[in-house]
Amino acid sequence: MNNNINIAIVGLGQIGIYLYNELIIKKKDIETKTGKKINIVAISAKNKNKKRRFKINKKIFYQNPLEIFKKQKIDILFESIGLSDGISKNVVETALNNKIHVITPNKALIAKHGDYLSLLAEKNKVNLEFEASVAGGIPILRTIKEGLATNKIQKVYGILNGTTNYILSEMENSNDSFSSVLKKAQNLGYAEPGNPKLDLNGFDAFAKVRILSSLCFNTKIATNNCLMEGIEKIELKDINIANQLDLRIKLLGISELINGQLFERVHPCLVDKKSYIGNVSGVMNAVILQGKPVGESVLQGEGAGPGPTSSSLLSDLLSILRGNIKYPFGIPGHKRIKPKIYNNDNYINSLYLRFEVKDVPGVMSKITKRLAKFKISIKRLIQTPDKKSNKATIVMTTHKTSEINIKRCLSVFKKDKDILKYPTIIRIYN
Amino acid sequence: MNNNINIAIVGLGQIGIYLYNELIIKKKDIETKTGKKINIVAISAKNKNKKRRFKINKKIFYQNPLEIFKKQKIDILFESIGLSDGISKNVVETALNNKIHVITPNKALIAKHGDYLSLLAEKNKVNLEFEASVAGGIPILRTIKEGLATNKIQKVYGILNGTTNYILSEMENSNDSFSSVLKKAQNLGYAEPGNPKLDLNGFDAFAKVRILSSLCFNTKIATNNCLMEGIEKIELKDINIANQLDLRIKLLGISELINGQLFERVHPCLVDKKSYIGNVSGVMNAVILQGKPVGESVLQGEGAGPGPTSSSLLSDLLSILRGNIKYPFGIPGHKRIKPKIYNNDNYINSLYLRFEVKDVPGVMSKITKRLAKFKISIKRLIQTPDKKSNKATIVMTTHKTSEINIKRCLSVFKKDKDILKYPTIIRIYN
Repeated sequence: MNNNINIAIVGLGQIGIYLYNELIIKKKDIETKTGKKINIVAISAKNKNKKRRFKINKKIFYQNPLEIFKKQKIDILFESIGLSDGISKNVVETALNNKIHVITPNKALIAKHGDYLSLLAEKNKVNLEFEASVAGGIPILRTIKEGLATNKIQKVYGILNGTTNYILSEMENSNDSFSSVLKKAQNLGYAEPGNPKLDLNGFDAFAKVRILSSLCFNTKIATNNCLMEGIEKIELKDINIANQLDLRIKLLGISELINGQLFERVHPCLVDKKSYIGNVSGVMNAVILQGKPVGESVLQGEGAGPGPTSSSLLSDLLSILRGNIKYPFGIPGHKRIKPKIYNNDNYINSLYLRFEVKDVPGVMSKITKRLAKFKISIKRLIQTPDKKSNKATIVMTTHKTSEINIKRCLSVFKKDKDILKYPTIIRIYN
Repeated sequence: MNNNINIAIVGLGQIGIYLYNELIIKKKDIETKTGKKINIVAISAKNKNKKRRFKINKKIFYQNPLEIFKKQKIDILFESIGLSDGISKNVVETALNNKIHVITPNKALIAKHGDYLSLLAEKNKVNLEFEASVAGGIPILRTIKEGLATNKIQKVYGILNGTTNYILSEMENSNDSFSSVLKKAQNLGYAEPGNPKLDLNGFDAFAKVRILSSLCFNTKIATNNCLMEGIEKIELKDINIANQLDLRIKLLGISELINGQLFERVHPCLVDKKSYIGNVSGVMNAVILQGKPVGESVLQGEGAGPGPTSSSLLSDLLSILRGNIKYPFGIPGHKRIKPKIYNNDNYINSLYLRFEVKDVPGVMSKITKRLAKFKISIKRLIQTPDKKSNKATIVMTTHKTSEINIKRCLSVFKKDKDILKYPTIIRIYN
């Protein structure tokens, strides 16, 4: 590698523009640490004249990022557009094929095309780095690939989405409804103003789980349909009842090997209020790894925002500048096997069920009879009548039962006129 | 670097022997990840025939480790004897001078001679890696040098000694005295059976603080006398009173820059029971970093024992096998400046003071008058008489005051016949 390194940044949104500024500020520091001089020689975004937090050098601006490859000699390219396909994929592919190292925080792209792109990087003997794609500023991927490199990891889980964690924490703190807290999150910049769906429905956390799994277990990225539930159905009522039970609701991303089969999932969990994970609040992210011989390792930090993300992007840059080519997923692509997939239906868990029912005689008996038929035994039951509206809320926690069993058991309540809503299910984590 | 790598292990205690076994078990995995074949070609320890947890190959055993350099071509040497000087230093020096990479978990050696040895490594263009020297299995040094490489770190602190953390946790849990819990710790292998002094008096944690400081702030290792207090003076009484105050006692290692001056310290702290650090219990270690732009990062894991230590030693090995030479402290030795040292006396803090006094009239007035003279104001006061022995315990928490002020204030009580013991001081962390 030459001592003068030409850099391109494609995408100048929140993250891209912060990175642009950081690279200028940290130029000297980077030279001290690596002996390399970096120069930003090309930048690209949709809109040249958009108002941005930092001033850009318009002389190096490209409307079409693909033009950069024709006009400039680039050593390292940052992709920060953020699409799973389209121009994001196109730019990264073209860069790798032109033997340009790529750094990206784009989890959607890596979760979908990571296998293909990493093979492309290996073929062209360049690096593809994506530390910032999972858990923002926490150097979790590097920790798995390097810090814990020879450990046998059995399980990785954590709070991987700051938006939902903020919403759940804030609902508890302020006793405000989901929709009002969501608005607050949007105003604070913690949730997408336009369409926050990908955070709320668990998809964002799920993309991260997929990346974590493949690194932890040395497998290809799984493509099966998975157990993925978001927080949209969580009501303030659930938060308060959890509180009474000394529990707290957290959206967890979990990946583990069960008898050698990969089980990935994202869903709200009830965790002990006193547990470590129960106390990670606000926009913080946390990842917990269980490995041998290291035991349990915990990493916690800010999971989003341009600062933490830039921290990870620059760690990728320094890794590349230090000079050697690394396998994007820690081992050679052809050694990463396709994972065997665990059947979600078999998963056994204790559950929290909330029924909203008409307050008429026989409803409770109907529910408990149905549960008994499926051998689901009740651990705790709280019934709260709402006399005014002639309704009642029935919350129960159950002993362990399988996913398929509870699905079959509850299906009947979809069309029961006394059950006002299909019950809210929250899995109890232990 | 050749594809066949010859390895020597010097020191076959708990850690050395576990490492020896791990290297044999993980040989294939290491080859997959790095393309290098490792071979253990030399081992050395004081006693060839000592009973060990794993069988050793006696054909490659050397009584004198320095003989290895004469008889074998070594690429990488593990030093796991653990002395700060003597044969440990001698072996590491000789290895580096022979252009052999060195990996060591020896914090005493690095805290004392790290500057010199790192320059030696740089001069000979080999790696000197010591990830396992701080916080066992937590890849904290790699995280600072690589994962958070371009952050400006302002402060690093945490629980860096598992032995003392176990003792403090266990005193609280079992309501047993310091000496009885220490015995339990020794039986469980958590404390040195012979001389646990270096753990108890804070020295072990302090060596780690020194290594952390130099990595976080890019400075030479400091050599000044420092604020270092152990847990030997903590009594069950203090644990119980802390409990009443919703506080918990933790031995913290702390390093920060105050107006550009380095302030390193290890001492028992009173922390909020509900805080994160207040809930890291048993033999766990935790490190908290405050940096820009990353924000606050937390790393927690098992801090000692051969398993976690081996995990870190092998991460160092893989880092070397991937091929490039790294600066041992993240930047070139000649760029690491000597730190300016903060004057401990100026440090301002709230305090917990426990006096054991004769239960006679006028004692309380004597103490409070003295505190008033030094403008130390009392926040809270608990007096517990022990009628039987005609003694009393007076505990007070104070508002903020400087180290020098409290020292001068309390000095008079060293020779006061009504004050039965120089007061126990615990700093309140905030």
